[in-house]
Formats: sequence, C-alpha cells, structure tokens
Amino acid sequence: MDALSLPKQDRSRATRQRLLEAAIACLAEHGWAGSTVSVVAERAGVSRGAAQHHFRTREDLFTAAVEYVAEQRSAAVRGLLPQVQLIIGPARTYLAVGQLVDLFTGPLFRAALQLWVAAAHDDALRARVTELEARVGREVHRMALELLGADERRAGVRETVQGFLDMCRGLGLATLLTDDSARRDRVIRHWTGVLSDLL
Amino acid sequence: MDALSLPKQDRSRATRQRLLEAAIACLAEHGWAGSTVSVVAERAGVSRGAAQHHFRTREDLFTAAVEYVAEQRSAAVRGLLPQVQLIIGPARTYLAVGQLVDLFTGPLFRAALQLWVAAAHDDALRARVTELEARVGREVHRMALELLGADERRAGVRETVQGFLDMCRGLGLATLLTDDSARRDRVIRHWTGVLSDLL
Repeated sequence: MDALSLPKQDRSRATRQRLLEAAIACLAEHGWAGSTVSVVAERAGVSRGAAQHHFRTREDLFTAAVEYVAEQRSAAVRGLLPQVQLIIGPARTYLAVGQLVDLFTGPLFRAALQLWVAAAHDDALRARVTELEARVGREVHRMALELLGADERRAGVRETVQGFLDMCRGLGLATLLTDDSARRDRVIRHWTGVLSDLL
Repeated sequence: MDALSLPKQDRSRATRQRLLEAAIACLAEHGWAGSTVSVVAERAGVSRGAAQHHFRTREDLFTAAVEYVAEQRSAAVRGLLPQVQLIIGPARTYLAVGQLVDLFTGPLFRAALQLWVAAAHDDALRARVTELEARVGREVHRMALELLGADERRAGVRETVQGFLDMCRGLGLATLLTDDSARRDRVIRHWTGVLSDLL
C-alpha cells in the first residue's frame, strides 16, 4: 500500500513524520540559521502550505522534531532493557555505557546541539528548548539508571550517573568536527571500569 | 597616558586586542550567524577598515579571538600553579577541579562553542576550528595534569584526565541555557572525591 492509498488520517501522520525526520537531518547538516520550514518541506517532499498546516511556527517544527526523535531513541533503548537486565557485573556496565554514549554521538545529538546553541541567543527558542531539554534530560537519566541497574537511593549514585552523563555530552561535542572514535573508545573502556566499581 | 598618546605600534596592538575581546563577547551573545566583522568593529569602537587591516577575513578574526582569550586564560591558570603545587591530597584536587570547570563555564567556552557548532556546517570555518581546538585541547590537557599533579606515565591516568575533561565540557554545555550551578556543584564535589582516589 503506498502513501496515497492510506486513509486520510494515516497520510497526515506519515507527512508529519516525514517533516520531523527531515527537520532533524536539516538541523544536523545546516544548523539553525540554515534550517527554515521551506527547506525542511522541500527535503520532505511536502508543500510549504502542508508543512505549515502541521507546524504553525519554525520553533514548533524543530522542537517537535527533537522531541519525536528523542522519544524514538528512548523507546529503542527501552526495548533492549529486558535483555540487558539479564546480564550482571562489568559486562552489564559495558553494554549500558555503549548504549548511553551512542545517544550522544548520533544525528539526534548533533541536531539537538544546533538547536540548543541557537537558543542561547534566540529568545523565542530559548524557553521552548529549555523546557524540552529538561524533559529529555530526565528521561535519559531514568534510562541510564535502568540500563546500569543503579540504585539512586544509595548515597552518591545520583551524582555518579549525572557526572557520567555530562561526560557523554562532552564526548558527543568532541565528535562534532572530527572522528574522535579511537580516543573515545579508550576513554569509555577506562571509565566503564571506574563506573562499574562505583555503582 | 591615553590610547592616542601611545606610540603607533602600541596603538595598533591595543586596537587588535579590543577587536579580539569584542569578537568573543559578540560570539557568546549573538552566535556565529550574528557575528560579522562590522558588528565587532562597532562594538570595539573601531572603523570597519581598521578592523579589516588587522583581520583579512571573518574566520581570521574569530579564530584569532578564541585563541587569544584561551591563551590569556591559560596564562592566568599557569600563574596559580606555584601556589597549587604547595598543596597535596584531596584539597589540591578540589582546587584543580574548580579551576578546570571554570574554564568550561565562562564567556570563552560560550564563544568557542558557538564557533565550534557553526564549523560543523561551514567548510571555511571547519579546518580552522579543528586545528585551533586540537591546539587548545592539548594545552588544557597539559594544564589539567599539572594542576592535578597527575603523572601520565601511570597506566590509566591519561584516560582518567581525558574523561574528566569531557565531563567538564558536558557541564559547560549544561550551563548554556539555564543556571546549572547548584547541580554542577553537587556533581563536582562528588567527582572530586572519585578523581582524588583515582589519581
């Protein structure tokens, strides 16, 4: 069944999804200044009018896109949880750390970073992005606790996990301009041992 | 002695310095898209022609500005070394960590971040920023080793310091849109203990 033979509601949902995915790719590649509703509509193969029917403003489109992709990534990681929970000890930590670092080195992080940095000097964007980042940040923190099998009621565990997620964010930033994967792998291998001892 | 009564060479150096400082403030406040040579010249109280006499291109001006301020910060931290080196144990680590985190939470980091993120989708900027970041990154790593009194010949020390600097970078990013200082202080206090045990 192709897109045109779908019921109207499904077609509309498919269009929305295409716009959101095009918005992420566009942000990651061209940054906020180069990302307009028109550019995204063209990339998604949708008319500008149809794009504006789905998203009234540029801010609506791009914050919705980051949220949508973050939810997709989050659902994918949650899907792995039942298998991860069967593993214990350093192997579990290693697997969990790999999943968490991946969250900060892909197109979603690149796109979110562009939005985040643009929001530092764009008031219309700032309030939206701040609220979005707080929500996504809480979800990533919860996910990290579950993946690592960490118990936040124990003293220091909260700060251990938070600091580790800050490290992941820094590793994501370091990979923005050059392929940092060789250094990153060494850092991750080392810190997985540290984290395993701490938790 | 005011600026006009300085010898010509000193006046030229003072103008250059004003342009570099104005460039950092401009980048931190308005991002790359809003930072042109004209905007910086106006902010510095210098004519556009004079600005272009000092910096042929926009890329020249802004990469020189990040390098200049990074060198200033680096010199200031190095100036503290003789005092820091008198202290040993966790108090030394705490002092060192505070200095290092400060490097990633001030206007210099905000400005460098704007340049860095713009370079992801600007080829003219990319090569320049990549080379600059490698140089600044090596200097910060050397400084971290000296501040922490860490011996890189010991296995794991290199990766401990690198991962910690990635954490600092992530903490800097987290403070871009909101005042993250309360959370940051808790994370830093906790990880200072971890780092002190590791080194």
